[in-house]
Amino acid sequence: MEPIVPHVGEIGESGLLDLIKRRFGNGPEGEVWVGDDAALVATGSRSLLTVDVLVEGIDFDFSYCTGFDVGWKSLAVNVSDIAAMGGRPERAVVALSLSPATLVGVVEAFLDGLEAGAGRWNVDIVGGDISGADEMSVSVTLLGAIDAEPVLRSGARLGDAICVTGSLGGAAGGLFALQRGLAGHNADIERLAARQLRPEPRIREAETLQAATAMVDVSDGLALDLTRLMKASGKGCTVSRELVPVDPALAALEDGPDPVELALRGGEDLELLCTLDPADVDRALEALGSPLAGLTRIGVVTDDGCLLDGEPLEGEELGWEHLRSR
Amino acid sequence: MEPIVPHVGEIGESGLLDLIKRRFGNGPEGEVWVGDDAALVATGSRSLLTVDVLVEGIDFDFSYCTGFDVGWKSLAVNVSDIAAMGGRPERAVVALSLSPATLVGVVEAFLDGLEAGAGRWNVDIVGGDISGADEMSVSVTLLGAIDAEPVLRSGARLGDAICVTGSLGGAAGGLFALQRGLAGHNADIERLAARQLRPEPRIREAETLQAATAMVDVSDGLALDLTRLMKASGKGCTVSRELVPVDPALAALEDGPDPVELALRGGEDLELLCTLDPADVDRALEALGSPLAGLTRIGVVTDDGCLLDGEPLEGEELGWEHLRSR
Repeated sequence: MEPIVPHVGEIGESGLLDLIKRRFGNGPEGEVWVGDDAALVATGSRSLLTVDVLVEGIDFDFSYCTGFDVGWKSLAVNVSDIAAMGGRPERAVVALSLSPATLVGVVEAFLDGLEAGAGRWNVDIVGGDISGADEMSVSVTLLGAIDAEPVLRSGARLGDAICVTGSLGGAAGGLFALQRGLAGHNADIERLAARQLRPEPRIREAETLQAATAMVDVSDGLALDLTRLMKASGKGCTVSRELVPVDPALAALEDGPDPVELALRGGEDLELLCTLDPADVDRALEALGSPLAGLTRIGVVTDDGCLLDGEPLEGEELGWEHLRSR
Repeated sequence: MEPIVPHVGEIGESGLLDLIKRRFGNGPEGEVWVGDDAALVATGSRSLLTVDVLVEGIDFDFSYCTGFDVGWKSLAVNVSDIAAMGGRPERAVVALSLSPATLVGVVEAFLDGLEAGAGRWNVDIVGGDISGADEMSVSVTLLGAIDAEPVLRSGARLGDAICVTGSLGGAAGGLFALQRGLAGHNADIERLAARQLRPEPRIREAETLQAATAMVDVSDGLALDLTRLMKASGKGCTVSRELVPVDPALAALEDGPDPVELALRGGEDLELLCTLDPADVDRALEALGSPLAGLTRIGVVTDDGCLLDGEPLEGEELGWEHLRSR
């Protein structure tokens, strides 16, 4: 008797590849996508290349998320990286490691999420690889195009304004809510959960921030990403805690962590953190108004040392860091 | 007291990133490598893109290999894919998932192996990502250049000669020897182990096979890769078992698996399997002589059905397939 709920081990790598080829199929004339040793794609004279890996039990957990969420997010985090360089995401390859015990339905949902994100952000999935594993992990590599000069993290200048898009802390608050089974309690908590599970990279905001002197996406928490940007630029900063845009939905987390702390140290918000010449700030603040995510000035670039309300922004627990023994 | 043998959890993601940046550092003028949200690299009008993931316990095991081996091989398998398309490997990004308990020395050895392969095959490591995990896995994405037309797997034509470079079965024989602790017994077994641990992609051979009508690298076993090539080309084949070039070192595996079976079904040899117009075969056979790996004609492309000595080349166990429940 055929099992009603098949798992990956039953259809094998070939079965899975057929399933993937049917979805992502062939490219346009002159390109080769899924199915050969490598994909062949058109590129401009310069390309952006980035990779992010999500691991089950570390970066996601099926106790609170779906295959769709994993597919969506695995692409979103890379799209955010390309946007933060001032580029345009174009092509992706996906390496998927799976236990044979994974349900085929979970893989289908993963592909659904990947495909939905690819459609939303105009990315073509052009190839990939599959391996067996004990735990699921997904590594997406994204190739992007860039027309203007890239916005590096090393370009901050003394006196530049430090600005951040949207609001912070929501993704970390969402994780808190999901891990405690709070999702569904009310609309605010749903919004937080969505920020964790279905993040929206700030592509359009990045386009309007081409004048930034430096830019990164906030993936490991404001404090850590800000410190890294300043280190790369050889500068310091002074930032006001009360200026940091805290996700308003965090107020719904009664007995939860301090919202401002989540905004400072929680990761995965995929907001853009940038430095702008003071002469460009007003224009940027206006340009990023509705329907975009908005922009908030939170501090200024200094010669040396990162200060939050006059205190050094340093210490062991700046934000999300992989691998540190916990 | 400081531990004498530090593990990754002690230096954390930041410590590891510093260690990686010191090695792979900055690119030439106009490029951005390790350290920003994405790498910026020069590209031609067309690029090749491929990814391969290696997972601890499935694709490698530290009971018989070193970190150096894993670094080398994770790049080699991708270089082989680019070569099999008729391209030139150029830039790589590396996603590394690691347990915090991994020794820093293992990571250093991994980076040594990666760097050695990168040097050998003229690849620049331009970026990457690190995540925590229970098991180690490495996903390398390789961007390649291509000047001429790509050699696809779909181009085989009726009457073409089927040829394969070098010899087959050695990598599978090496795995057999390593898993049984036979490495070091004699020079032949050392050669087999090296084919498993330090494979040599056939870059120069691929350059001389630009006239091939179709080409793939033999990564999952001759039988499976041949069947896939013919399926992609909409053709069949007839192949002679006695023509298949068996790695001569396999004779050293007394009481081991049948060498011809290993040559047919063992994976990871990274030889090139191609189809050639009969008019081009003699030139190719001559061009691939010493110091290259050599080329052997093993059969001919037919209209339909893959036959080995007249018997259908089909069935459950064609070669290495991930995910099939074992």
